[in-house]
Amino acid sequence: MIYLDNSATTQPYPEVLHTYKEVSEKIWGNPSSLHRLGTQATRILDASRKQIADLLGKSPEEIFFTSGGTEGDNWVIKGVAFEKQAFGKHIIVSAIEHPAVKESALWLKTQGFEVDLAPVTKDGFVDLEALEKLIRSDTILVSIMAVNNEIGAIQPIPQISKLLEDRPTISFHVDAVQAVGKIPTEMYLTPRVDFATFSSHKFHGPRGVGFIYKKASKRLTPLLTGGGQEQDLRSTTENVAGIAATAKALRMTMERFEVVNNRQKAMKQVILKALATYPDITVFSGQENFTDSIITFGLKNVRGEVVVHAFESHEIYISTTSACSSKAGKPAGTLLAMGVPQKLAQTAVRVSLGDDTDMSQIEHFLTILGQIDHQTQKIR
Amino acid sequence: MIYLDNSATTQPYPEVLHTYKEVSEKIWGNPSSLHRLGTQATRILDASRKQIADLLGKSPEEIFFTSGGTEGDNWVIKGVAFEKQAFGKHIIVSAIEHPAVKESALWLKTQGFEVDLAPVTKDGFVDLEALEKLIRSDTILVSIMAVNNEIGAIQPIPQISKLLEDRPTISFHVDAVQAVGKIPTEMYLTPRVDFATFSSHKFHGPRGVGFIYKKASKRLTPLLTGGGQEQDLRSTTENVAGIAATAKALRMTMERFEVVNNRQKAMKQVILKALATYPDITVFSGQENFTDSIITFGLKNVRGEVVVHAFESHEIYISTTSACSSKAGKPAGTLLAMGVPQKLAQTAVRVSLGDDTDMSQIEHFLTILGQIDHQTQKIR
Ligand SMILES: Cc1ncc(COP(=O)(O)O)c(C=O)c1O
Ligand SMILES: Cc1ncc(COP(=O)(O)O)c(C=O)c1O
Repeated sequence: MIYLDNSATTQPYPEVLHTYKEVSEKIWGNPSSLHRLGTQATRILDASRKQIADLLGKSPEEIFFTSGGTEGDNWVIKGVAFEKQAFGKHIIVSAIEHPAVKESALWLKTQGFEVDLAPVTKDGFVDLEALEKLIRSDTILVSIMAVNNEIGAIQPIPQISKLLEDRPTISFHVDAVQAVGKIPTEMYLTPRVDFATFSSHKFHGPRGVGFIYKKASKRLTPLLTGGGQEQDLRSTTENVAGIAATAKALRMTMERFEVVNNRQKAMKQVILKALATYPDITVFSGQENFTDSIITFGLKNVRGEVVVHAFESHEIYISTTSACSSKAGKPAGTLLAMGVPQKLAQTAVRVSLGDDTDMSQIEHFLTILGQIDHQTQKIR
Repeated sequence: MIYLDNSATTQPYPEVLHTYKEVSEKIWGNPSSLHRLGTQATRILDASRKQIADLLGKSPEEIFFTSGGTEGDNWVIKGVAFEKQAFGKHIIVSAIEHPAVKESALWLKTQGFEVDLAPVTKDGFVDLEALEKLIRSDTILVSIMAVNNEIGAIQPIPQISKLLEDRPTISFHVDAVQAVGKIPTEMYLTPRVDFATFSSHKFHGPRGVGFIYKKASKRLTPLLTGGGQEQDLRSTTENVAGIAATAKALRMTMERFEVVNNRQKAMKQVILKALATYPDITVFSGQENFTDSIITFGLKNVRGEVVVHAFESHEIYISTTSACSSKAGKPAGTLLAMGVPQKLAQTAVRVSLGDDTDMSQIEHFLTILGQIDHQTQKIR
């Protein structure tokens, strides 16, 4: 099996599952309990939070655990909106955000908010000038993802940070779900960023766990009210085992960063070089300011699903851009926002490399691509 | 160690952790992926949902997975409110609800909703007459818990169902978090109930997983918008391993129901009989319409924390009523709502029995109680 769908989800590291199991078996107390089992659980919780904060260069009080990227995005978008509605009701998110951000912003329209989608260039980057023009005196939130999940474009977070530097009343949120382990932290967690979203299963952690970064000075209305956990900002009995496993996954991912990135850079070059030899292939992922882990392309007149299933029969697993849109059969929203015609966008497939993807797998993938290109000639 | 804090959280069954591990290792694909790994994951997800639905006598389309009881409660309370706000903005929740319900309702006041707290009798049961009087033509939601987490009172859900029978426009939500494995399903999932909340870690399942029951005909605004999972009502990459583990925990809990309940009934009798011999002990948990798993009482003039820590030094783990209020040092909200004076309420401690609690543990607990009663005589 060759798994090239790491942007959809990653295989949990064995060490991560081991931590999950150990904590679940031994430290299963409720951190809110006053007795020893509660104290032990609190200690693990605190240590995990500190480890994550240290890895990101932030304070433990700025890390809040969630159930994943979607909750983090919903919480920040809706939480900032509810928190600041007295000051303004205008929100800007980019046109290529993940649905967890985009749909949250659009839902707010039913609550009287106004939402603008910041356009992207034909290469897939938020257009800075257009973004600046959208900013109004009642803009309370700008949300831009760090790494696009459909084509791998690294968004200009440092430049947007600069743009927002002298506009301190605007909260700046970055969806960093696809950035962890792919680009250096300072490229998405600039000092200007107020909130950022993370999801464990994208970096070999457990499913159903994530966290947000919230700048200490910023306020945020809770999405989950209740028993008062997480500084009374995100209630529920803490998933201590999942949180400890997340800390481990983040540490391991950060440690492997350079080795993995160098390997992926080489693999991407090989793939792009091979793709360029096919006259019927359109490559949507560029090179400069793109992660090396994602390569999105299309075979002329062949729908993405057909290509995915052709690879599947060789036990090679790729995807039609995002996992979310794939079942709905929708073309990649990012490509449409870039101005790619619908028919061409529907050909797109995404190859996303993992920590353990190696060159021999890529060579095999390319061999099979040649076969599929050949076989699909007749249906074009 | 004697663990008598099972209402705070339960130890995951070894079989449950085994399922979690197996699925995490073998079926870690994203159910949204079009390829085989996605299909396999979808199959486990569907099977788990069907198993849970079967166990509760409901349809699979009526089960939606969440991150726990707090999310379920928040989702239903806020989701019904947002869904039905055009028809009315009045909500009734009982005065003894868990903060996940109560705080969610109170938050809605900031969004223009009106909230009434239905009072309880001095024994801890929702007062049916008082509840009926609170109902208005613009009431959209009534939320009453099945089993109270602080004293174990079983709320009259069948009678409230009757009361709401000819008021079909009112959504009826039941927080069933403390009911699973404690009382028969029909006592909290009557045909009139529209929504119910469940949390895995309260029945030996994994932390950070839960589900809600939503009657097929009822609409609910999502709390987590995004990629479209769970019939587009609760987005996020599904925690397949946690969900499969939850299904297993529920099945095991349901299978053990009778044996465990008979054992707990006998243990509660022994505890109550012993408590009755102490002139300085007030028992807050009654017998009729109370679960056998929770016994809440207080030692005159001794704060609950003192008693918890005294037991802790003997490796016996009990709690000051709910886990949530314990760290905040607040007295049990339920007792105050019953009209128990603040000073007396502060003495309360909760003993909550588990599946594997046995009589010898209870005897040891009672021996230590005798010692603690004796030792604390001087500080009263
Ligand atoms: C950019 C981005 N944001 C948010 C999410 C949602 O994360 P999760 O599946 O953990 O809810 C994803 C992945 O699906 C993503 O790629
Ligand atoms: C009655 C009740 N409802 C809701 C909850 C919240 O559940 P969770 O901790 O899974 O969020 C609890 C437990 O803490 C509870 O006892």
